[in-house]
Amino acid sequence: MTDWDSLYAPRARGMMASEIRELLKLLDRPEIISFAGGIPDPALFPRAALADAFARILGDPARAAAALQYSASEGYLPLREWIAAYMGGLGVPCSPDHILITSGAQQALDFVGKLFVAPGDTVLVARPTYLGALQALNAYEPLYAPLPRPGDNNAPLPGSGKRALGYVMPDFQNPTGLSLDLAARQQLLDAAAMRGLPLVEDAAYEALRYDGEALPPLLALDAEQSGGIDGSRVLFCGTFSKTVVPGLRIGWIVAPRPVIRRLVLIKQASDLHSGTLNQMVLHEVASALLPASLTRLREVYARRRDAMLAALAAHMPPGVEWTKPAGGMFVWLTLPSLIDAGGLLPRAIAEASVAFVPGRAFHADGGGANTLRLNFTLAEEGRIAEGVRRLGNLLSREIAGVA
Amino acid sequence: MTDWDSLYAPRARGMMASEIRELLKLLDRPEIISFAGGIPDPALFPRAALADAFARILGDPARAAAALQYSASEGYLPLREWIAAYMGGLGVPCSPDHILITSGAQQALDFVGKLFVAPGDTVLVARPTYLGALQALNAYEPLYAPLPRPGDNNAPLPGSGKRALGYVMPDFQNPTGLSLDLAARQQLLDAAAMRGLPLVEDAAYEALRYDGEALPPLLALDAEQSGGIDGSRVLFCGTFSKTVVPGLRIGWIVAPRPVIRRLVLIKQASDLHSGTLNQMVLHEVASALLPASLTRLREVYARRRDAMLAALAAHMPPGVEWTKPAGGMFVWLTLPSLIDAGGLLPRAIAEASVAFVPGRAFHADGGGANTLRLNFTLAEEGRIAEGVRRLGNLLSREIAGVA
Repeated sequence: MTDWDSLYAPRARGMMASEIRELLKLLDRPEIISFAGGIPDPALFPRAALADAFARILGDPARAAAALQYSASEGYLPLREWIAAYMGGLGVPCSPDHILITSGAQQALDFVGKLFVAPGDTVLVARPTYLGALQALNAYEPLYAPLPRPGDNNAPLPGSGKRALGYVMPDFQNPTGLSLDLAARQQLLDAAAMRGLPLVEDAAYEALRYDGEALPPLLALDAEQSGGIDGSRVLFCGTFSKTVVPGLRIGWIVAPRPVIRRLVLIKQASDLHSGTLNQMVLHEVASALLPASLTRLREVYARRRDAMLAALAAHMPPGVEWTKPAGGMFVWLTLPSLIDAGGLLPRAIAEASVAFVPGRAFHADGGGANTLRLNFTLAEEGRIAEGVRRLGNLLSREIAGVA
Repeated sequence: MTDWDSLYAPRARGMMASEIRELLKLLDRPEIISFAGGIPDPALFPRAALADAFARILGDPARAAAALQYSASEGYLPLREWIAAYMGGLGVPCSPDHILITSGAQQALDFVGKLFVAPGDTVLVARPTYLGALQALNAYEPLYAPLPRPGDNNAPLPGSGKRALGYVMPDFQNPTGLSLDLAARQQLLDAAAMRGLPLVEDAAYEALRYDGEALPPLLALDAEQSGGIDGSRVLFCGTFSKTVVPGLRIGWIVAPRPVIRRLVLIKQASDLHSGTLNQMVLHEVASALLPASLTRLREVYARRRDAMLAALAAHMPPGVEWTKPAGGMFVWLTLPSLIDAGGLLPRAIAEASVAFVPGRAFHADGGGANTLRLNFTLAEEGRIAEGVRRLGNLLSREIAGVA
């Protein structure tokens, strides 16, 4: 037999199968209440509007011919125009040639890694940070370091290369649910400017705000201070996965034109273009439904977030702390330091029929053993309350056993 | 302004925008007869069957919920089962866990590069070879060398790394339209075995045979000689882009299970998964229509191939040679050595209203200036004859001018 391991490029060493992901694949038993996924409730998908759009486009021979054919790597122009207008509403004035359509925000992260990160370069991330960003960037063999904080702007970077890149999710971060306030956004931009650091702004959850007023994206602040997007150093990654549906795999990057031109070459080399029909359908559905359809999404998810926070307050034993997110999909728990969430998961599934994602995988440095992530968008309130009760009982026993 | 070029990883140097591609983007004037694309005729797309499948899936709440949701990185199981049966028909006995669904064959090439190619490794390619393969692999900074031929099995490789990978399109190659005969397939496998070389078999045009009997894929031959796919060193890349439609972006890789497990991690890190709904629709349409629907495709494309070959015989001046493909989408022209096809293209568009792809971009070593590729699947016979006549007249003047 071929010794395949000996034939792989060194970057393959960073691509490890997650035991936890394998475990979580087994969660289709109906008695299990899973808070593990990061997925929207399919009951809220605009199924009828999508079905109508598919039927309308495929019912028109000329549009169907275009929709089913190869198309431009940049993406479907009317969709890029719609996104440009949407970005304008977020305080980011831009044009379609500042936009590349990607297959979800995940592909945007892969492309940014491909363009900016060579082995030994530094990627600066929050602690914890989005697991999928670490997976996308690991293929390019970076070293990781913490994002700059006020006061340490000139600390040396660990990487051997001169290049560095920052990655941040300013709104309702996956996994903590927390956002950067306006002062933190400005500090991050100042620190990035001082270092000449490009910043990847992952805005996957930006539209899912349940309380308070929207804050400007990093790109809006930076473009205003830099005389427009073409002077900015922020690469904004957006997606329809949370606001419409994930299964069509459509997201986007907004960036200065020279960067977009490079990313278009990467798109062409990587998969030619995103699905043509899916882009046309999302253009129709987004034009017709957004942002109005977000009102319903926010109402439902806010109630579930409230149910989860109430259940946590009712059922968690002393020593367990959690975030109170103003949006997004997740609550982040910190357990007493002796409790290992990864070790607890198999027992949570077996003994309490409840699942979560242990927090270690969200830490580029391997820490966070006593943390875990709970999703509140998929289950209904009653299930959320019951699942948190089960988890609270398990944790109470666990903490009593350790104490 | 940011000096973006200074911030890119070294691999970005291999990603150059093609002037020719920019030129070919401008070909939407109706008087131009373009042989430049590599695209199927949309009049042959199974539009009604696709529309029905979309309507059926989206009309069923449970199926729609799955179709619009996140899904497994491996791909939709029933589609992988269908592909496994299809591969069985090609002489490749395999199971769904030998298969990863990709976003077209282009993404399969990118993933193979990501898994197997580090800077300085060697990739062995035909001369000429598929331009898109060079674009996908360039991101991983290989050196290129010719595929082994009989008698030079032990020639040293140019790369500094110990790793090497072969890439080949055995059936109706893009750009030449030529196939490897059975002896050449066996010689290539023998040479690869001697070197311990993994071989990427790009089967994009495999189903588009107009004359003669099908030859076994490299993977079929190698699996038979190696006791099954898991003992083979061939990675087979297939696609629905030529047999159904390209716009849904669905292709696949068949490979030994350890390689598929690695590729699944790459898929997850790169874009999570291919469009769920598109996979479900292609499963329905392929199950219902293939292979019967290929009969019509082959009839139409064979007539167009014949029209192109007849027009070339009628209109090309002495000194121009061309291939006579038994399938696929392309005829390859070799001009007298002093004629530069790249220089000729702007005049062909401006003076003769006809377009083609100059051959240099298909050469990893930059040669092939006097070659060009003609596509015969998009235009109807009358347009093909007229376009070849125009090109023949231009070449006659050009050759007379050089002589």
